[in-house]
Amino acid sequence: MFRKSRREEWVPYSLSLVDVFDPIFYPQALAVIGASADPTKFGNIILSAIQEIGYGGKIYPVNPEGGEINGLKVFRSLAEISGPVDFAAITIPASTLLKALEECRDKGVKGVEILTSGFKETGTPEGKQLETEISQFARGGMRILGPNCFGIYCPESGLTILPGQNFSREPGPVGFLSQSGGLCADLGQIAKGLGIRFSKMVSYGNGCDVAACDLLEYFFADPKTGIIAGYVEGIEDGPRFLRLLRDNRGKKPVILWKAGLTSTGGRAVQSHTGSLGGSAEIWQGAFRQAGVIQVYSAEELIDAIYAFLYLPGGAGPRVAVMGGGGAISVAASDSLERLGLSVPYFSPEVLQKLKASFPPVGNSLRNPVDLGNPMIPPSMLRKVMDAAGQDGGIDVLIVIQILFYILYQVRHRLGRDGQPLSRFSFQPELLRACQEIKTRYGKPIILAMLDITAEGQMIDLEVEFRKERDIYQAAGFPVFRSLDRAARALAHVVGFRRMIS
Amino acid sequence: MFRKSRREEWVPYSLSLVDVFDPIFYPQALAVIGASADPTKFGNIILSAIQEIGYGGKIYPVNPEGGEINGLKVFRSLAEISGPVDFAAITIPASTLLKALEECRDKGVKGVEILTSGFKETGTPEGKQLETEISQFARGGMRILGPNCFGIYCPESGLTILPGQNFSREPGPVGFLSQSGGLCADLGQIAKGLGIRFSKMVSYGNGCDVAACDLLEYFFADPKTGIIAGYVEGIEDGPRFLRLLRDNRGKKPVILWKAGLTSTGGRAVQSHTGSLGGSAEIWQGAFRQAGVIQVYSAEELIDAIYAFLYLPGGAGPRVAVMGGGGAISVAASDSLERLGLSVPYFSPEVLQKLKASFPPVGNSLRNPVDLGNPMIPPSMLRKVMDAAGQDGGIDVLIVIQILFYILYQVRHRLGRDGQPLSRFSFQPELLRACQEIKTRYGKPIILAMLDITAEGQMIDLEVEFRKERDIYQAAGFPVFRSLDRAARALAHVVGFRRMIS
Repeated sequence: MFRKSRREEWVPYSLSLVDVFDPIFYPQALAVIGASADPTKFGNIILSAIQEIGYGGKIYPVNPEGGEINGLKVFRSLAEISGPVDFAAITIPASTLLKALEECRDKGVKGVEILTSGFKETGTPEGKQLETEISQFARGGMRILGPNCFGIYCPESGLTILPGQNFSREPGPVGFLSQSGGLCADLGQIAKGLGIRFSKMVSYGNGCDVAACDLLEYFFADPKTGIIAGYVEGIEDGPRFLRLLRDNRGKKPVILWKAGLTSTGGRAVQSHTGSLGGSAEIWQGAFRQAGVIQVYSAEELIDAIYAFLYLPGGAGPRVAVMGGGGAISVAASDSLERLGLSVPYFSPEVLQKLKASFPPVGNSLRNPVDLGNPMIPPSMLRKVMDAAGQDGGIDVLIVIQILFYILYQVRHRLGRDGQPLSRFSFQPELLRACQEIKTRYGKPIILAMLDITAEGQMIDLEVEFRKERDIYQAAGFPVFRSLDRAARALAHVVGFRRMIS
Repeated sequence: MFRKSRREEWVPYSLSLVDVFDPIFYPQALAVIGASADPTKFGNIILSAIQEIGYGGKIYPVNPEGGEINGLKVFRSLAEISGPVDFAAITIPASTLLKALEECRDKGVKGVEILTSGFKETGTPEGKQLETEISQFARGGMRILGPNCFGIYCPESGLTILPGQNFSREPGPVGFLSQSGGLCADLGQIAKGLGIRFSKMVSYGNGCDVAACDLLEYFFADPKTGIIAGYVEGIEDGPRFLRLLRDNRGKKPVILWKAGLTSTGGRAVQSHTGSLGGSAEIWQGAFRQAGVIQVYSAEELIDAIYAFLYLPGGAGPRVAVMGGGGAISVAASDSLERLGLSVPYFSPEVLQKLKASFPPVGNSLRNPVDLGNPMIPPSMLRKVMDAAGQDGGIDVLIVIQILFYILYQVRHRLGRDGQPLSRFSFQPELLRACQEIKTRYGKPIILAMLDITAEGQMIDLEVEFRKERDIYQAAGFPVFRSLDRAARALAHVVGFRRMIS
């Protein structure tokens, strides 16, 4: 009674991938095989990271030399460990790997992550041969991540990748899979400040056993994962991959960066994880059919995850854009329309009411709304937000703020250059306005807080920006650093609803 | 003996636009008409800005109420001023403007900037009529900037726009023209930290007299301007504009953001400066023919100016990309190739030599070069830079650095979490390597210093980044914050050479 797929003949039908993977994502005890006292070695970095992030289960460092590392007793072999071991992180050289995998199998380890490189990605016959031999171990039921990967980050259980010692311990709905470990390391880092939280993040490197298909299938079934994102260079089983995606259509959003779609990119993929790239057109068509949100850079990937997270109810395409400074409005219109969104005029009644509240000169109220200067107080902006809320032709609000003018210039103008910028902040009042309008009209509100300073001396603006952004985010309002990025991310959310409807 | 053009019948043939505009950009004495003691009024903001930036000529505040503002005697009218006045900034309401312009004309003022709004951009017949009446004053030889503009920034003479009190006083080669004043304010600010320096920046708003054509013609002739950039919503005289650009072909690079190319963008343009937009295809074709570098956002505009400034000798399309972390290399290849650049393999001899210096596993040396982890010391990176320098098939080097790993993670790994990040910096050694390689092989080197932290707590990384960036910039090496931005900016420089060759 075994289920048949490319590599999973050994998986009994009764076991779903949730049953298979959960002991790996939530291990009671783990071993670090190749643990080292040298802080520059993977065997130390991964051990330290798991300790520092606060993994709560048992940790067994393994090294034939024995002794003690980071305050933990070192075991000379897995056999020496008396209790069970669910999971192992392996950092020893490729040549000694097979023996270690035998020991893991004999110990009853349920899954391993192999951080070591020197396999298929080298392009040599020896590397490929060794990887094939490694993958055989998976036939016995022990699942393998890697080789040439950074492993698993699971904030709920306290597993983390290399180097992820300071990743957030707060779990969240994002399941992330990636052939690149470096991207996982970068994303886990930048996610902290953006309030992006993960159910699991998996770097699977060369993917000799576990790869994109299994992880997708797991994430689709995992009740803790609501948004799925990933970076893939090649797919091990195209038909299964597309079938899985099509079965998910209309359920959890899937955001994928398929790299290596150009000829040099495809070549770079081969020496990175040994995958084959495939043509851009084929992938684009397949992704569209399968309802996948396709992105083309790390920034676009992060922004899309962020938008799906902060706009859980989705969003429509008709946008009201409001701020001060006209080029911003013109640029916003261009940006949004190029991405398939629109900036429609307000209805005559709404516009009429709005006109009564503003001076006849120095602003443009029809949408995009340009209030003439960027230092507009929230009490004024609130009137425009209310109009956009009332207008039945508007789905989403984008509110532009430029802290440089609101804080730095206003402080200077008031002759209070010595005082902290936060004293001049519009944030408390604007947040209240956002909350009221959102509650009253149920329309999503996005903030675009543009950054126009790059000087070392202006660092206090960046400090204040991060503080204000955290407050808006905590209240459920996404904050983008440019209009183009806000528009692109919004377009993905809108596009997803169009694809699945 | 007058030269004929749409508005310039009054310009004698013997006068070039340099002769016409230089007294305006470099005035000996200026008046602020509508000067005010109220720090929220334009009449105070512009006066204060000109004083604070340190304009060296005579400043005459004018206001019928007299008295003293910002320590300066206020004149009740221009006629009261005994000496000559070359230039005037005007901030009084639209209704009293004609009288002020009469006074300026009678006083022999050579040029005025009208910051007041309420003209053509309102879309009303009265607004349009008033603007036509204003423009008549230019027939007498007094040139008019605006209305509905932010004025002139000229670091050499100390003129500045509203609000530009803290703009740099260091002159540079960039001539900037813009229908949007807000964009000028933003650009002047962000330029400071990027080392972008201006000959002149002109916000011309509705452009009732001086507009894009005159400013282009001036910049082409101005020996202090080497790179021209601009934001235009509509062009007052299309044939003259294109003729000017074609005559300049192959000389000074011109980077233009033509906004309002979508239907909603075009509509927004009308209520911003009252211009007509025009279709995207027509503009793209015309720009290509005229050798103009076309950009589509503020970020792209700034990055392109920056690239032309830091790569004065231009650059070729064949790029070597080097760093640690494989997804970066794959992404770089994709990014560059999509933009018409290439990442060719190193020649067999160069690769052979390179392979001898690196371990056989954990890196990919053929280009893009992925050294396996982002904490690669400059001594290792230098070997790759030298190889790329030697290789006849490579034109440009892009070196990737991620300070988070180099500083924060290394410090943590060494157990020195309390120490300042700068102690762990690779910058001095990497800068020396850049300088040596550039001197030896004459190839441009671009740094991509990626930002992967967004948290408030990580602000010290941003502080260190700005410090290191300033040092690289001062030594002539451009620093971009993402690979995509570096690639896009480089592609503009390469594309310009292709267009003009």
